[in-house]
Amino acid sequence: MPKRVAVIHGPNLNMLGKREIGIYGGQSMDDINADVENEAESLGVDVEFYQSNSEGELCSYIQGCRNRVDGIVLNAGAYTHYSIALRDAIASAQVAAVEVHISNIFKRESFRHVSVLAPVCIGQICGLGSHGYILALRALMEERFDPWQV
Amino acid sequence: MPKRVAVIHGPNLNMLGKREIGIYGGQSMDDINADVENEAESLGVDVEFYQSNSEGELCSYIQGCRNRVDGIVLNAGAYTHYSIALRDAIASAQVAAVEVHISNIFKRESFRHVSVLAPVCIGQICGLGSHGYILALRALMEERFDPWQV
Amino acid sequence: MPKRVAVIHGPNLNMLGKREIGIYGGQSMDDINADVENEAESLGVDVEFYQSNSEGELCSYIQGCRNRVDGIVLNAGAYTHYSIALRDAIASAQVAAVEVHISNIFKRESFRHVSVLAPVCIGQICGLGSHGYILALRALMEERFDPWQV
Amino acid sequence: MPKRVAVIHGPNLNMLGKREIGIYGGQSMDDINADVENEAESLGVDVEFYQSNSEGELCSYIQGCRNRVDGIVLNAGAYTHYSIALRDAIASAQVAAVEVHISNIFKRESFRHVSVLAPVCIGQICGLGSHGYILALRALMEERFDPWQV
Amino acid sequence: MPKRVAVIHGPNLNMLGKREIGIYGGQSMDDINADVENEAESLGVDVEFYQSNSEGELCSYIQGCRNRVDGIVLNAGAYTHYSIALRDAIASAQVAAVEVHISNIFKRESFRHVSVLAPVCIGQICGLGSHGYILALRALMEERFDPWQV
Amino acid sequence: MPKRVAVIHGPNLNMLGKREIGIYGGQSMDDINADVENEAESLGVDVEFYQSNSEGELCSYIQGCRNRVDGIVLNAGAYTHYSIALRDAIASAQVAAVEVHISNIFKRESFRHVSVLAPVCIGQICGLGSHGYILALRALMEERFDPWQV
Amino acid sequence: MPKRVAVIHGPNLNMLGKREIGIYGGQSMDDINADVENEAESLGVDVEFYQSNSEGELCSYIQGCRNRVDGIVLNAGAYTHYSIALRDAIASAQVAAVEVHISNIFKRESFRHVSVLAPVCIGQICGLGSHGYILALRALMEERFDPWQV
Amino acid sequence: MPKRVAVIHGPNLNMLGKREIGIYGGQSMDDINADVENEAESLGVDVEFYQSNSEGELCSYIQGCRNRVDGIVLNAGAYTHYSIALRDAIASAQVAAVEVHISNIFKRESFRHVSVLAPVCIGQICGLGSHGYILALRALMEERFDPWQV
Amino acid sequence: MPKRVAVIHGPNLNMLGKREIGIYGGQSMDDINADVENEAESLGVDVEFYQSNSEGELCSYIQGCRNRVDGIVLNAGAYTHYSIALRDAIASAQVAAVEVHISNIFKRESFRHVSVLAPVCIGQICGLGSHGYILALRALMEERFDPWQV
Amino acid sequence: MPKRVAVIHGPNLNMLGKREIGIYGGQSMDDINADVENEAESLGVDVEFYQSNSEGELCSYIQGCRNRVDGIVLNAGAYTHYSIALRDAIASAQVAAVEVHISNIFKRESFRHVSVLAPVCIGQICGLGSHGYILALRALMEERFDPWQV
Amino acid sequence: MPKRVAVIHGPNLNMLGKREIGIYGGQSMDDINADVENEAESLGVDVEFYQSNSEGELCSYIQGCRNRVDGIVLNAGAYTHYSIALRDAIASAQVAAVEVHISNIFKRESFRHVSVLAPVCIGQICGLGSHGYILALRALMEERFDPWQV
Amino acid sequence: MPKRVAVIHGPNLNMLGKREIGIYGGQSMDDINADVENEAESLGVDVEFYQSNSEGELCSYIQGCRNRVDGIVLNAGAYTHYSIALRDAIASAQVAAVEVHISNIFKRESFRHVSVLAPVCIGQICGLGSHGYILALRALMEERFDPWQV
Repeated sequence: MPKRVAVIHGPNLNMLGKREIGIYGGQSMDDINADVENEAESLGVDVEFYQSNSEGELCSYIQGCRNRVDGIVLNAGAYTHYSIALRDAIASAQVAAVEVHISNIFKRESFRHVSVLAPVCIGQICGLGSHGYILALRALMEERFDPWQV
Repeated sequence: MPKRVAVIHGPNLNMLGKREIGIYGGQSMDDINADVENEAESLGVDVEFYQSNSEGELCSYIQGCRNRVDGIVLNAGAYTHYSIALRDAIASAQVAAVEVHISNIFKRESFRHVSVLAPVCIGQICGLGSHGYILALRALMEERFDPWQV
Repeated sequence: MPKRVAVIHGPNLNMLGKREIGIYGGQSMDDINADVENEAESLGVDVEFYQSNSEGELCSYIQGCRNRVDGIVLNAGAYTHYSIALRDAIASAQVAAVEVHISNIFKRESFRHVSVLAPVCIGQICGLGSHGYILALRALMEERFDPWQV
Repeated sequence: MPKRVAVIHGPNLNMLGKREIGIYGGQSMDDINADVENEAESLGVDVEFYQSNSEGELCSYIQGCRNRVDGIVLNAGAYTHYSIALRDAIASAQVAAVEVHISNIFKRESFRHVSVLAPVCIGQICGLGSHGYILALRALMEERFDPWQV
Repeated sequence: MPKRVAVIHGPNLNMLGKREIGIYGGQSMDDINADVENEAESLGVDVEFYQSNSEGELCSYIQGCRNRVDGIVLNAGAYTHYSIALRDAIASAQVAAVEVHISNIFKRESFRHVSVLAPVCIGQICGLGSHGYILALRALMEERFDPWQV
Repeated sequence: MPKRVAVIHGPNLNMLGKREIGIYGGQSMDDINADVENEAESLGVDVEFYQSNSEGELCSYIQGCRNRVDGIVLNAGAYTHYSIALRDAIASAQVAAVEVHISNIFKRESFRHVSVLAPVCIGQICGLGSHGYILALRALMEERFDPWQV
Repeated sequence: MPKRVAVIHGPNLNMLGKREIGIYGGQSMDDINADVENEAESLGVDVEFYQSNSEGELCSYIQGCRNRVDGIVLNAGAYTHYSIALRDAIASAQVAAVEVHISNIFKRESFRHVSVLAPVCIGQICGLGSHGYILALRALMEERFDPWQV
Repeated sequence: MPKRVAVIHGPNLNMLGKREIGIYGGQSMDDINADVENEAESLGVDVEFYQSNSEGELCSYIQGCRNRVDGIVLNAGAYTHYSIALRDAIASAQVAAVEVHISNIFKRESFRHVSVLAPVCIGQICGLGSHGYILALRALMEERFDPWQV
Repeated sequence: MPKRVAVIHGPNLNMLGKREIGIYGGQSMDDINADVENEAESLGVDVEFYQSNSEGELCSYIQGCRNRVDGIVLNAGAYTHYSIALRDAIASAQVAAVEVHISNIFKRESFRHVSVLAPVCIGQICGLGSHGYILALRALMEERFDPWQV
Repeated sequence: MPKRVAVIHGPNLNMLGKREIGIYGGQSMDDINADVENEAESLGVDVEFYQSNSEGELCSYIQGCRNRVDGIVLNAGAYTHYSIALRDAIASAQVAAVEVHISNIFKRESFRHVSVLAPVCIGQICGLGSHGYILALRALMEERFDPWQV
Repeated sequence: MPKRVAVIHGPNLNMLGKREIGIYGGQSMDDINADVENEAESLGVDVEFYQSNSEGELCSYIQGCRNRVDGIVLNAGAYTHYSIALRDAIASAQVAAVEVHISNIFKRESFRHVSVLAPVCIGQICGLGSHGYILALRALMEERFDPWQV
Repeated sequence: MPKRVAVIHGPNLNMLGKREIGIYGGQSMDDINADVENEAESLGVDVEFYQSNSEGELCSYIQGCRNRVDGIVLNAGAYTHYSIALRDAIASAQVAAVEVHISNIFKRESFRHVSVLAPVCIGQICGLGSHGYILALRALMEERFDPWQV
């Protein structure tokens, strides 16, 4: 049976391509999802997509990944920097997650240098534009994931 | 007329018993609620239960406790540590609240040592497992609560 | 065509007039909205009102202001102090926003002295009671807004 | 008898219109005073103007407002950020003061994010350009000021 | 054989009922001990009481609990906030301890928000008045304590 | 009946005159006490003297001043900088206390710049050598002390 | 020839007796000066008085004390907390200075807990009301001042 | 002409596979280089490899990449966290660099959470094991790099 | 027409040569000015000198340099470390300024390590004694100053 | 006459061998003292032993070493990290002291990384188990101690 | 076969005996090595000596100790305070290391109070002069070292 | 015999003129050295030049200046901000050093505002471009250097 990966976008990522193109590039979220879909097909993996501006809904969605998906590609947007609720949701879901940021968060405001999610993800990719989602998907497919341990 | 107490669970507490059993124990949220229900019966107090992963919904629920319930047992989970919105909701509800944590938050990551809710609750019980809910309920029944003052 | 301004209230502002009257005054949110409505009529500007306790819904509403309203009067309540998601929503909406606080946040707890929204708003009015909403509306009408730049 | 309001400008505001027009706009201090004068006439309030680069003279002037003027519109410029002497002068004058900043101080260097004066003023208006003086004057005329209490 | 619990009061708790009644309530330490004694009888547990103003004597007493008592109810008063010696004593005694504070320490001066003892206790109860001692005793009786591990 | 003042010396002050004469001067504690005794006689006030190296004994002694002495002259030595237990003892004793330091603590190591006792004393005298005890005694005799309030 | 002492009052002390009587008492600066004058006569010492709101003028006055007066009683008001210029003036004047504060600065806002002047004064008296000036004068008369050394 | 990428290993990475296999995995540096070599061949890009324990030699090597290589894959090891010299070398080389860490540095000691290099690299990949080198190489090949700008 | 440079001395520099010779050397301010005058003659540049202890007067003088002098040599003394008013005055004057300190401020108290003026000056010379003024003058004459840009 | 060295153990060291053997090893305090006694005999030096849990008693004992013993081997346990009273006692005793810790305090909780005693001891030995006492004794015998100077 | 210990000196220790004799004593590095050599002979242990000013060479040398020497005596000089590269080298070498400092680093500048190496060494000896090397050697010979574990 | 001065360039200064010309200007290191050579000739002083990217080699070179050169002009580049090893090397060399920075380090990233070398140099020149080297050389020739003292 093919592996299944959830690609999860946090708040304001539905605005991609419309705003701050100098920072985030000109691709829309749908463009990115299409690229990931293509890559997934070539890798033989099923993908599903989710976006929400709501911290609570993101928690619920991540909780629902437990025992259902094999990996998560997560760009939590602004919640990256303060949502301990998302952190706990990831820990409780026990699914391997790779954190993605389109921009290089270390070149931006200092409050964006901190990720409260990083310690419960297996790794982080940032600054490589929307290509980071593709790389994260590949990483999930090539890594041998043991049962989750934080 | 019997007193009425709202028992409110914050984000990810719906995952109790499924995850991190070393930290939170093996009881599910429903198990805890059943225990509280039993205790409430023996104390002659009405209880209601609520869980949400959403900060906004938790705010709304707490607001709705105003002039309707006599006390709140609140385990706000991760929101404990940063939700000033919940803090303001408690203050505006003017209902006596007891903060509960299943684990001893002072043995864990340093960001869990801070509760932004504690100054607007009447007290805090932590580290005593799911038994903390029972103790909080008893405390609310034995304390003589004057009209709210923060 | 008349200008259009969105007046947005954050969490717990629906409780105005019921709680902590010493801090926030005795007017309800509806009273304030009525005053703003009157002022808007005299200024010949259309206004719309929105309140939510949910960070995610506030984000979505602010996103929806893009290319639809000409200015925002925003009292984000507790989210003022930590919601980077709201900050990003304002930045992505590219609508001029004026931040309003009913109380003088600098006389209160130190965690209320910081606004993570202020750097993406054009200005801030605080401590002038519900009258601050009126002043913010006037300011939006008298300023000449160029296309948004943070 | 008409109310009387003192409009007080701190250090370097006599340079307005000559320097850093990108930050402060092109109006001179005299231009602003003329605008305020006009507004005052239409509101039926007497205004007086004062500017000094000297912290001590500003203290003395503010002390002299005691029992003589009904309100103060104060742009203390750089002294905003460190002059505890001005803070004490405002407290001792027992006159309602509104703090004004032409630029949005929260978009600038971090040392400008702190106002040691804010806790003894009734409120603050910033980032709305020279129009902030007008709004502050209106606020003082519409508020019902009780005897001063910090 | 019945379980045995030591109830230990730190510095200045011998002054209870005489001072700062607004903070600590009107009960004396002897009143509290009598209440605990009653509760202990109904629970079928032996209790002993100790109070000292001396950090060293409190250390010695706690050391002496090793292999002699089954649980400790500890209100260490001011030492809570800085006595690493007491912390080490608790760790070396290898007896399950519940930390109690009569007042809500999180509503008071910031130096009272930190407990250096909390990480070596099993849990903490605060803000529930002298009733906290009773709740701590009950918790100790209902918990199943394994051999001590910090 | 004459007033009664307790002069209390903290840890290591029994070593005065033997050590670090450059910092503390050449007078012994007995020399200082004799000078205070003389001054007390001329002022018609009874004095008593106490020294201890033990934080707990100092607490007990200060507690015992309650309703027995009219004022305290306190040089708490090193405990000044961290003994919250002494702070609480002073608050519970409800006797007006003046804090004295022989050396100017603000010229010394930075950890000596902080007094945790100062907020519960009526005032502080430092850097004026052993003469500070005399001045503190005079201050207590000339002030009109109302019942204690912190 | 009699000794000569300068009594120097900083900003806003000319407002004493008019403002914040709960903090500073009801005596005016002239009342205090008269009391000091009386004390000086009984001690056989000449005193002079100076007040200014201006940091620069206070610097100049202190500089002018060099080789002209034997001691300084200095209440620098708000400048106490940040005026390094006054600190340098005291150091350059090479006259023994005693710092006085009417209120107990350690009971007030945290920014008042720091004195940048204390390390270049011989000592500090605070919280003893206007009586502190008298005590400082006495201290200066009883100390044996060697040539200045910071 | 094929692109050329330098793969640069910092201090102690020559010990890979010998130590701390739990953290870094069991592959040696030569194993990783061989994997990268294979990937490079399939991508049609030339790669070169360099390792040094010396901060100065790493600086010199990076300087030498200027106008000679098209991209850098850099695992600077411990120097990541403090070597401003390496940071300046990268900035002066004007070659696009991707920072790689084998382990998830955000799960380790807090001093490893900071990268002084990140702001001058285009992006960062961490926690994905030795596979991160491959992903970085792919990213460099798929990104369209404009002339360097930090 | 010859260039014109203003040499500006801040607070307490009028005391040079009288005080703290170990730190500042034995030259008076007049001695330094005479040396600078000589150097200016040999360089064919006009110089003017100004000293004030008053922050406000220094601001006014620096404002007056606008469009009148070509460069400023500024030793702001203690104001260096906190006078944002002076900083703003320099920025508004739009004249190239070189900051001079006679002593090496980095060997002294930590509060002297910070210059709030440095970011608006073109450079800084410190620790080279009164010779620093000469070097600053030479630097101003040899640099090619474009219109001011901070 | 043989030299005399006092070996002083602070709080909870009387529990050695009973608790936390993984950290402190299996030797009891008596075992260590016996080893030190043997070593002392072979070195021809008299030793005496003291243990107390009381900060005050430890102060008194150290004071009593003045002019009586030639050196101190001090393991102050938890007091190491906050007892300024012990620090002052060591300084007043004017006896050369070597600080010993059985465990490597730098591998443990961050509050154990600070020693307030270290600056008044001649040196520190930590992490070498109970053997550190022997090494400290040897060091005291081989060093040539001049009269004490801190 | 005899044990083998590497004695490693970091930057500037080759200058011992030439500089700052008040801090480091008059012995040269060669003198110290000779003393250690003598001690090693009497203990029947082989020693080797190494000094470098280069962080990279020190890393390489320490790496080379792996599986070749039985213990390391390490005085890393200034690198002690910031070289995470050396820390990682020690961890990767898996050889028991004792950290030595000639001076008492806790009496010196605050940046010398921190050792980034201490957590990966078994212990630390400081302040006992060059004798510390001898004591460290003895400690290594008397401890029973298990395979390295950090 | 002519004086001899070493001009020492730290890491990446060999890249001058090639990179970041907006910050460092367009001159190469060789251009600067040629200018300094010319100035040295006119002043009758011998100069030598050295550049290295290696902290260790810079230490060794500075050590070698002892008793061989009369002064050092040092631009330590990035090492300025963290190399305690260089600091110790300068202190051990006992040669008067002047610190030079081409750019105004106080206008750049905050980590460049700190110089760990400044306290062991006699002074600092920054922000005056490559001309700073010339001024430093002149300063060394005009100062009368006593034997080194930090």
